[in-house]
Amino acid sequence: MRIDVLTLFPEMLEGVFGASILGKARDKGIVSLNAVNFRDYANNKHNTVDDYPYGGGGGMVLKPEPLFAAVEDLVAEGAQAPRVILMCPQGETFTQRKAEELSGESHLIFVCGHYEGYDERIREHLVTDELSIGDYVLTGGELPAMVVVDSVVRLLPGVLGNETSAVTDSFSTGLLEYPHYTRPAVFRDWEVPEVLLSGHHANVEAWRREQSLLRTLQRRPELLESAELTAKERAWLKRLVIQEKSQE
Amino acid sequence: MRIDVLTLFPEMLEGVFGASILGKARDKGIVSLNAVNFRDYANNKHNTVDDYPYGGGGGMVLKPEPLFAAVEDLVAEGAQAPRVILMCPQGETFTQRKAEELSGESHLIFVCGHYEGYDERIREHLVTDELSIGDYVLTGGELPAMVVVDSVVRLLPGVLGNETSAVTDSFSTGLLEYPHYTRPAVFRDWEVPEVLLSGHHANVEAWRREQSLLRTLQRRPELLESAELTAKERAWLKRLVIQEKSQE
Repeated sequence: MRIDVLTLFPEMLEGVFGASILGKARDKGIVSLNAVNFRDYANNKHNTVDDYPYGGGGGMVLKPEPLFAAVEDLVAEGAQAPRVILMCPQGETFTQRKAEELSGESHLIFVCGHYEGYDERIREHLVTDELSIGDYVLTGGELPAMVVVDSVVRLLPGVLGNETSAVTDSFSTGLLEYPHYTRPAVFRDWEVPEVLLSGHHANVEAWRREQSLLRTLQRRPELLESAELTAKERAWLKRLVIQEKSQE
Repeated sequence: MRIDVLTLFPEMLEGVFGASILGKARDKGIVSLNAVNFRDYANNKHNTVDDYPYGGGGGMVLKPEPLFAAVEDLVAEGAQAPRVILMCPQGETFTQRKAEELSGESHLIFVCGHYEGYDERIREHLVTDELSIGDYVLTGGELPAMVVVDSVVRLLPGVLGNETSAVTDSFSTGLLEYPHYTRPAVFRDWEVPEVLLSGHHANVEAWRREQSLLRTLQRRPELLESAELTAKERAWLKRLVIQEKSQE
């Protein structure tokens, strides 16, 4: 997979693209990760990439020319039509399902504004997707683009070893994770639950499933509706909810 | 404000903490941003920070000792009890409201795991908050921590100039932004809407408000329920919805 990130702050991306899982995926040749400064495509005397908004008001607006030129240059080099993804608060909320969808593409181009708005013609005629990573305001699209890149690249075959995939992937099952414990068995006065030290595999599994269900019920009950549960588990959760209500 | 990020990959943070708005806030002395490698607190022969899970299963689990030691060291240096924030998929979903709340604190410590799980005693006895930036799986807590830091720091007094705050802040009004346009007035065949070139301030404002309402209706209708709208605007939106339904 090839990923290009159009940004005015390429130095923000290098530390992340070079480290840990992304760095290894890059070294293995599974993904090519490039931060491209679209100011290089400004093509005017002062390398201007933004301008005042028509109609007045505060804030600068990113001009269409440099971004069209940059995307067209990157596409000309490659073979297939890429997905061109604009990071912005008005975009579709990014989810794990979208990460899976994007992981099937061969070329992604991210467009990152930075406290400016985008000329609407970029949105209408250049991008194929608009994504938001959540309902909060950030100073630019760089962190959101890196978040999407990280979640997509870790899904590519060969990127995660078996040893690393287990923990993080449990979120994708639709339930929240059960609690983890490691040595020491007693830290300060806090002990590891006895069942985990028992060596009784079936009891450990039962405890973990129960904890996973409980935590999901307490923190994200809406996830239980679409999770795969047995009839017995559903009945147990229902009893818990009724008990809780009767104690209120 | 002081912000410490506990991580095994401090090099992921430096590019972001040094650039743009965060870098300027740091230079102005408004915020101190530190990436702290908690491996330095491992205090064992092999600098081990993780270990196999009790009860078996895949994935490594972060040990309690290094993280407790790191947090306690950072607190000893400072005056007030900090918020200790664990970034994890099971956490409370991060929102703009939470960013505003955290911007009132004087010391934040972020704890970032990296494809490992956390020993549950960290969750129970060390952290004050657990946050998730969205429903997708990432390889570590570093990008989520940087997202939260970015959204919090930009709210601190003196960080954003007036010229940069306008565009991004419009998301906080509860409606999505209206479209922006800048020069050229015609790019390829695509023209800027005439009203924006008219110089008629009231018409421009009316058009923008209408576009903002329309975009919110099309993309995030649930936001309209809590937005501040006039009775006339509510009636207009209602008519639009009815029209649309009759055309289906």
